[in-house]
Amino acid sequence: MANKSHYQFNETKRVAYSTIKPWIRQIFCTNGLKEADAEIVADSLVTADARGVYSHGILRTSIYRKRIQKGCVDVNAVPQVIVDNAATMVVEGNNAMGQVVGQYAMEKAIEKAKVYGISFVSARGSNHYGTCAYYAQMALAEQMIGISATIGGGNLMAPWGGTDARVGNNPFGIAIPAENAFPVVLDMAQSVVAKGKIVMATKTNTPIPKEWAFDNNGRETTDPFKAMQGTVRPIADYKGYGIAATVGFLCSVISDAAIGLSLKDVYEDFSGGLNKGQMFIAIDLAHLTDVSAFKRRMDREIAYIKASPPAKDMEEVYLPGELEARKQEQQMKEGILYPIEVLDEIKEISTKDKVKIPAGI
Amino acid sequence: MANKSHYQFNETKRVAYSTIKPWIRQIFCTNGLKEADAEIVADSLVTADARGVYSHGILRTSIYRKRIQKGCVDVNAVPQVIVDNAATMVVEGNNAMGQVVGQYAMEKAIEKAKVYGISFVSARGSNHYGTCAYYAQMALAEQMIGISATIGGGNLMAPWGGTDARVGNNPFGIAIPAENAFPVVLDMAQSVVAKGKIVMATKTNTPIPKEWAFDNNGRETTDPFKAMQGTVRPIADYKGYGIAATVGFLCSVISDAAIGLSLKDVYEDFSGGLNKGQMFIAIDLAHLTDVSAFKRRMDREIAYIKASPPAKDMEEVYLPGELEARKQEQQMKEGILYPIEVLDEIKEISTKDKVKIPAGI
Repeated sequence: MANKSHYQFNETKRVAYSTIKPWIRQIFCTNGLKEADAEIVADSLVTADARGVYSHGILRTSIYRKRIQKGCVDVNAVPQVIVDNAATMVVEGNNAMGQVVGQYAMEKAIEKAKVYGISFVSARGSNHYGTCAYYAQMALAEQMIGISATIGGGNLMAPWGGTDARVGNNPFGIAIPAENAFPVVLDMAQSVVAKGKIVMATKTNTPIPKEWAFDNNGRETTDPFKAMQGTVRPIADYKGYGIAATVGFLCSVISDAAIGLSLKDVYEDFSGGLNKGQMFIAIDLAHLTDVSAFKRRMDREIAYIKASPPAKDMEEVYLPGELEARKQEQQMKEGILYPIEVLDEIKEISTKDKVKIPAGI
Repeated sequence: MANKSHYQFNETKRVAYSTIKPWIRQIFCTNGLKEADAEIVADSLVTADARGVYSHGILRTSIYRKRIQKGCVDVNAVPQVIVDNAATMVVEGNNAMGQVVGQYAMEKAIEKAKVYGISFVSARGSNHYGTCAYYAQMALAEQMIGISATIGGGNLMAPWGGTDARVGNNPFGIAIPAENAFPVVLDMAQSVVAKGKIVMATKTNTPIPKEWAFDNNGRETTDPFKAMQGTVRPIADYKGYGIAATVGFLCSVISDAAIGLSLKDVYEDFSGGLNKGQMFIAIDLAHLTDVSAFKRRMDREIAYIKASPPAKDMEEVYLPGELEARKQEQQMKEGILYPIEVLDEIKEISTKDKVKIPAGI
């Protein structure tokens, strides 16, 4: 019984959040983002790294910058509400950075949930927005359950039984508050691994497990470069495909955002905005129950699950998001562990953009 | 590449929906249910069979009847609203049959979605309610997206990294309308297979694939009887466990229904009501977009996915719920194919309960 696959880094360096975040922010400011928008993007990326979710961390700086420089993202755009109807809303992202659209839409979802108890905000005209958990977790401070999902970064998976990539890995995130325990935060893509992990394997030139992906002939492969040309495998085969297809419809068909044939690959298509679709739900617990009692019940159930005797070679049983929360606590204190290759790429970018590299990096 | 695992039946018989449904209804009436309630239960079970979802079909008649006869379900109970707050609601099932609670709660969710655009109904005091798809699909006729989920029939899975069963397989269903294509209906448990399929294998004394379950020592097993004593394996290992845990919290912690230590096994605990928790969400598309345009977009995306060239040995690519919808169309015309063992059990029950067995069975 193996736990989550962890990254194997070669040479690494720990960097403080307070060092790396302003550095990344400055890169985006230099590339034209307003400071407030650059702050959201940098925080979303560095927070992902702090949580150990390196696939959605500063590794993405390079592609975000490239898309901005090629004019695929409108750095001046402000998202706007185009449908506002009781507990529901459609947000037009106007091709702003995905994080800017995501934060705006989730704030709207939270406002609406305060009034109606639950809300649904559907976004279009967005871009890659980082981790779903980032937006789902925004609900926690309001004593709400948060849900967010996005169409994936491109059609990466074949529909089950098919051979070519027509479905995104379409991740979703759900955050549920607890009292003293870490909040439960589930954030998962419907592929066996996020494509970002395959990207990471190409950066470090590391073979991937054969269960991760198919090559462009539909055969299993351990070569991350061949996997980049093929399709990633859905979790649980037809079930994961089913989730991916369904999440895609919920994210993009309501708001008429890109999906299927109109979905452009974030890494490969620089013809314009991605018109990504995303969804945001907030559920205000105070509308339904006594919030403190709810949070104590969550603590009780979390403790019950954690009390399961661990299997051979396992030290402890974890709740969804617990490893990430523990990692975040640790790395916010001790600094965030980065592979040298990832930092080197940011240094290269900084040199090109004439952004000051922090001392000691 | 294998498609969904299909049942291997030995001797079988086709029976018309119009024959089997009144027969099952009569069994439940004889056991004390009001006719309208017996109708809901019978329709939910026979519809599952018609869709090929035999694990949640009339196979369950025996356990439902046993629970009624042992006084574990209140056949006279009427569900009631205990919290009604804008777009949200908590329903107390009062220990009615799960299907009765489910239908009541989903009707409330649909009513609320008409007003607010989205709704959230949390139920407690419920029982085993059949398939999630049954309730999610109720939204389709209203041009809504329907979502329903339930705490599972018992703690069947170990938390990932643990050894004992502390998590239900906690299925969810999502139904999305289309124009001419079949609606997309995803309905899945978080175990590699529903425990009902293992129950079915014990009925037909058929070995199960080793990926389905662990024995009570956490080892893979092909023996369905040993699997019944052990734990079922979550799909995609820690990801499936993560979904199961999260769905369980959403279903049972808000309404303070049974979960974890308080979750009784539907097959093993006859000490009283199960106090199951379920959730129901309806999203009224008319609040968000032009419904006809939405449905045409769904058709377009479904067609795009279906146009994927099939893999070797596959004839066609299917959307979630499409195989079930096709099967339902076929079996509503030609009769529902049943293994003799399942019909024999209903005949035995009928003899005991002095219910007339339809001619030709």
